[in-house]
Amino acid sequence: MADQDELRAKVDANGIALPDALSEHGVDLDRALDARSQLVNAAAYLELHIEQGPVLESMDLPLGVVLGTFGVERHVVTFRGQAAHAGSTPMDKRRDALAGAARLELEIREIAKRTGGGAVCTMGGVVTKPGIVTSVVETAECLLDQRHLDAATLASMLDEAKRAAERIAQEENIDVEWERIWNIQPILFDNGLIELADESIREVAGISHRLPSGPLHDAAEVARAGVPTVMLFVQSLRGLSHTKLEDTKPEHLELSVRALDALATKTLEQFT
Amino acid sequence: MADQDELRAKVDANGIALPDALSEHGVDLDRALDARSQLVNAAAYLELHIEQGPVLESMDLPLGVVLGTFGVERHVVTFRGQAAHAGSTPMDKRRDALAGAARLELEIREIAKRTGGGAVCTMGGVVTKPGIVTSVVETAECLLDQRHLDAATLASMLDEAKRAAERIAQEENIDVEWERIWNIQPILFDNGLIELADESIREVAGISHRLPSGPLHDAAEVARAGVPTVMLFVQSLRGLSHTKLEDTKPEHLELSVRALDALATKTLEQFT
Repeated sequence: MADQDELRAKVDANGIALPDALSEHGVDLDRALDARSQLVNAAAYLELHIEQGPVLESMDLPLGVVLGTFGVERHVVTFRGQAAHAGSTPMDKRRDALAGAARLELEIREIAKRTGGGAVCTMGGVVTKPGIVTSVVETAECLLDQRHLDAATLASMLDEAKRAAERIAQEENIDVEWERIWNIQPILFDNGLIELADESIREVAGISHRLPSGPLHDAAEVARAGVPTVMLFVQSLRGLSHTKLEDTKPEHLELSVRALDALATKTLEQFT
Repeated sequence: MADQDELRAKVDANGIALPDALSEHGVDLDRALDARSQLVNAAAYLELHIEQGPVLESMDLPLGVVLGTFGVERHVVTFRGQAAHAGSTPMDKRRDALAGAARLELEIREIAKRTGGGAVCTMGGVVTKPGIVTSVVETAECLLDQRHLDAATLASMLDEAKRAAERIAQEENIDVEWERIWNIQPILFDNGLIELADESIREVAGISHRLPSGPLHDAAEVARAGVPTVMLFVQSLRGLSHTKLEDTKPEHLELSVRALDALATKTLEQFT
């Protein structure tokens, strides 16, 4: 949880401080953490969610058990070369920042493949400056997102990406700088609940599958607060989410509710 | 020259039509082309310019003769894939438009190197959408500039880039689309004047060098109008131009003026 003094200093676009905006809705920032007391009697936390990815669909399975949520490392990686006239600067005299970005984009895919175990690396955007057709790119700012369920593996993926960027920068005679935007540790769900979820899915759908979650979920925060937690995923059509095209078959939704019901029954028997 | 009806239709940010803006400064658009009559008695056109590139400096030469200006092909190359969650989309299920841009950026360098003869290819900018850290890139718009002194070679460089982009798009399971922004044919300077320029430079500096011009110049338009034309380049420090850092040594400037004087004398003798 972010420091309360940091939260207190936050102001919205209209100049209204966060504590004031919250109190208008009956929330007292100073007492917000008291809400934790609600967790004291929580025996377990169960969450059913669409997968938001294509794994279950590609395996032709309706349901899966979530092992936990990926740890995430997010950085802005900035390559700096030298702006130079696109017409008068020979190829071998260039210090092209975009070449750094291009090579890193291709390298992070290799890092993810080599790592395996569901590892994902994404360059979500590149901003090029000056970004005009008549100039070699001087700076290329790359948004890098790396995720894995295992903390040590994630750390080594980040390390590999940093070493690759250094090598590329050296070979291209450009500079590179890393700035961390955000990171979070992997959060593993409860082993006992994972077993119960697996059983429940097998009962309603015949076959189950265990998979990590790339996206974060409410369940991750509850698990971090110390409550035994597990999630069920139901298949997403085409792996799409956060778009009008997001959809799940009605028969899969029905199976998912039946699996959650079975899981809740088992959990009440064993965790309370 | 652009069509006059097209020019007549142009309006500035304040809504003032081009013909009106011109007439305020005593220029009648309908009679603008009459200015060509000024060229009737022009025996030759000589232009002295800074190189704006690093070639003469890297050869430790003060002066060079310009063979002509490069032909230019400019395109927006747009790769289209599928936006997808950076956490939940496995690497092998992605259709990453940025991968297309990255591979083309690296491929155009190889095309320029293979082509040689001063060939240059530049990806001056990439715009990524949605361009956020949590999504695979859906579209990547690349600004591509290619230049060469030989028209057929330039055409084949463009063709190579198009075939590379198609192959990359197919391999990445994404789409690619080309839109030409602008192009111009190479413009070759007058052979007789190139010889005289060479002689003049050798007289004042001992050694000369022939090179094409990547940037366009006024001389290119005059040569296109049918006037025998040549240019002299004087060394640019660090190859930089259009920046406060643009500079040329005073002793090189002096040599360049002496070479232009010698060239003008020779031209008056032989071309009038």
